[in-house]
Amino acid sequence: MQSLRVALGNRSYPIHIGAGLIDQPALYAPHLGSGKVAVVTNEVVAPLYLARVRAALAAAGAESIEIVVPDGETAKGWQTLDRVFDALLAARCGRDGVIVALGGGVVGDLAGFAAAVYLRGVPFIQVPTTLLAQVDSSVGGKTAINHARGKNMIGAFHQPLAVIADVATLDTLPERELRAGLAEVIKHGFVLDAAFVAWLEANVGALLARERAALERAVQRCCELKADVVAADEREAGLRAVLNFGHTFGHAIETGLGYGAWLHGEAVAAGMAMAAELSVRAGLLEADAARRVRALIARAGLPAHGPELPVERYLELMAVDKKAARGRTRFVLLEAIGCAALRDDVSERAVCEAILACTPRTPAPAAR
Amino acid sequence: MQSLRVALGNRSYPIHIGAGLIDQPALYAPHLGSGKVAVVTNEVVAPLYLARVRAALAAAGAESIEIVVPDGETAKGWQTLDRVFDALLAARCGRDGVIVALGGGVVGDLAGFAAAVYLRGVPFIQVPTTLLAQVDSSVGGKTAINHARGKNMIGAFHQPLAVIADVATLDTLPERELRAGLAEVIKHGFVLDAAFVAWLEANVGALLARERAALERAVQRCCELKADVVAADEREAGLRAVLNFGHTFGHAIETGLGYGAWLHGEAVAAGMAMAAELSVRAGLLEADAARRVRALIARAGLPAHGPELPVERYLELMAVDKKAARGRTRFVLLEAIGCAALRDDVSERAVCEAILACTPRTPAPAAR
Repeated sequence: MQSLRVALGNRSYPIHIGAGLIDQPALYAPHLGSGKVAVVTNEVVAPLYLARVRAALAAAGAESIEIVVPDGETAKGWQTLDRVFDALLAARCGRDGVIVALGGGVVGDLAGFAAAVYLRGVPFIQVPTTLLAQVDSSVGGKTAINHARGKNMIGAFHQPLAVIADVATLDTLPERELRAGLAEVIKHGFVLDAAFVAWLEANVGALLARERAALERAVQRCCELKADVVAADEREAGLRAVLNFGHTFGHAIETGLGYGAWLHGEAVAAGMAMAAELSVRAGLLEADAARRVRALIARAGLPAHGPELPVERYLELMAVDKKAARGRTRFVLLEAIGCAALRDDVSERAVCEAILACTPRTPAPAAR
Repeated sequence: MQSLRVALGNRSYPIHIGAGLIDQPALYAPHLGSGKVAVVTNEVVAPLYLARVRAALAAAGAESIEIVVPDGETAKGWQTLDRVFDALLAARCGRDGVIVALGGGVVGDLAGFAAAVYLRGVPFIQVPTTLLAQVDSSVGGKTAINHARGKNMIGAFHQPLAVIADVATLDTLPERELRAGLAEVIKHGFVLDAAFVAWLEANVGALLARERAALERAVQRCCELKADVVAADEREAGLRAVLNFGHTFGHAIETGLGYGAWLHGEAVAAGMAMAAELSVRAGLLEADAARRVRALIARAGLPAHGPELPVERYLELMAVDKKAARGRTRFVLLEAIGCAALRDDVSERAVCEAILACTPRTPAPAAR
């Protein structure tokens, strides 16, 4: 087991990474209060890991209840959240209890936001069971639900007490979700660590084959990178925004197609290809580096092209992206592999061109 | 104008108290960002003060939009909150904007919670227009909405940038709401300041007659008392709980009757009478002091008795009160006028007796 720490003063917390961790009572015990533990998970994860987590909690001396929500991005809305509140209140969970988020990014974001606002805030533990959640969404305290007008529009910064990332749970992850998680792995390299990109180029096959040592190393490196960024900029006043590389375009894709049509990681993958293309058009990045971005995305089995939405729709969807400042959309671009830059002076024309370059267009009938 | 400060490090903020303040651009100006200002208010307050606030914001250089929600406690739920999010997103309000809460406790709690979670948190300014909001709910950063299973169950601690309490707005306050606000004024005295209780006993008539100097002094003293408590215990780990005097019983009354049947202050008034009675039965308080509590409540035109709900219903409703710790309900009791004590060792029997002593009971038909 590897352990590292997110340094945030009195909100600091450990991240444990290894195989078989969900069964270890000692990893939960330091973080339990005197009250009930509510394990929030979904219908897919529950049959696989819920009993084991509850057994470990019982061995750690905690009484637990379970709250099982539907699977998928559509669960990340108010309706499901209200069901979680209802179950917490029905079980009389108090401020002396803890919420455990057992599942992927949707469960982590939903249960984390529930913890942030239930009784004005109760503690929670992240037990991520997808690659995406282990390398990204479970670390850093960002929690949210979606709104009809945009993804993650309603949320809170609420740091967990601990993150327990059991890479053995990735054995049951569907192939498509494994690849989607790789998008966030690759993202960490593109914006922060050129050496890690080189390692990924050499090891993407081992990761797709779920070789445990490779997965453990990838999760650990992403958590190290993310922990440093979060410690430096918890509430995304500046630096932390680099982790949104690909996300402005990606959120537009997700919202434009309706949540869940594309997985988050797939949309981010296409979004990273667009952002790299935009970086070239903005004169920041060599064309060869953008080709390397697209190549690694493709080797991970991810889309390096976005869906064929009208360009105007992309622009409209990006304008409500919450990273917009003073009415301008701020983009995370690349200056080189491993080196990101925030820019809000990009021309709309360059954005349109980058979108068009990365979306396969059927010629209009009149042009045939 | 009086100004005081809530000392919370980098979240410190001023409270301005006086007549005619809502028209003064200089009070808003230091707190405005580069983005839009969204003024959240309700259908009753909007015709009275919205145009004046927007004029002052315009004079301070800010572009503003208005979001008008229904009046009353029933507005303090997810449905209304979602309409606020919808309006914020439709107007493309960003993190560089500010939300202004213009109205009473419901608007302040709702708009404050919206600010706490919209885009994971945007700043807000409290412009309270009821006595209750000026002396209590606008200060201290508690924000919340109600849940079908309990009042204020979903919320956040989110401090405003400033509180602008214009006592001239109390001129238009309905008589019943003025009295309800007095309940929270009196509460501050009962738990923290015996001298203030004596002043209130001498000046309750002047307050009911809306003499401006008396109102200004009452608002100022309550804000001073509350600012000190909040500075010492922002997130209600201990001391701050004394401000919940009367609220455990009061929330049971509000939830038991359905939100809005009794005003919050009316329920708190009856709850304070019950809590004083319980203090006597727990051996903490002289019976004479409890009589003084009831007398001041009655002189303020407030109920010193609760509604005739079954005692079991009271107990059930109090058990889900969020102040419950380890399954026990923690009560704020009095050791003397001006001196509160937190107790979680009160017998259920004493609680039942206190409720019965403070609810008029119709004799059962068989006993006639």
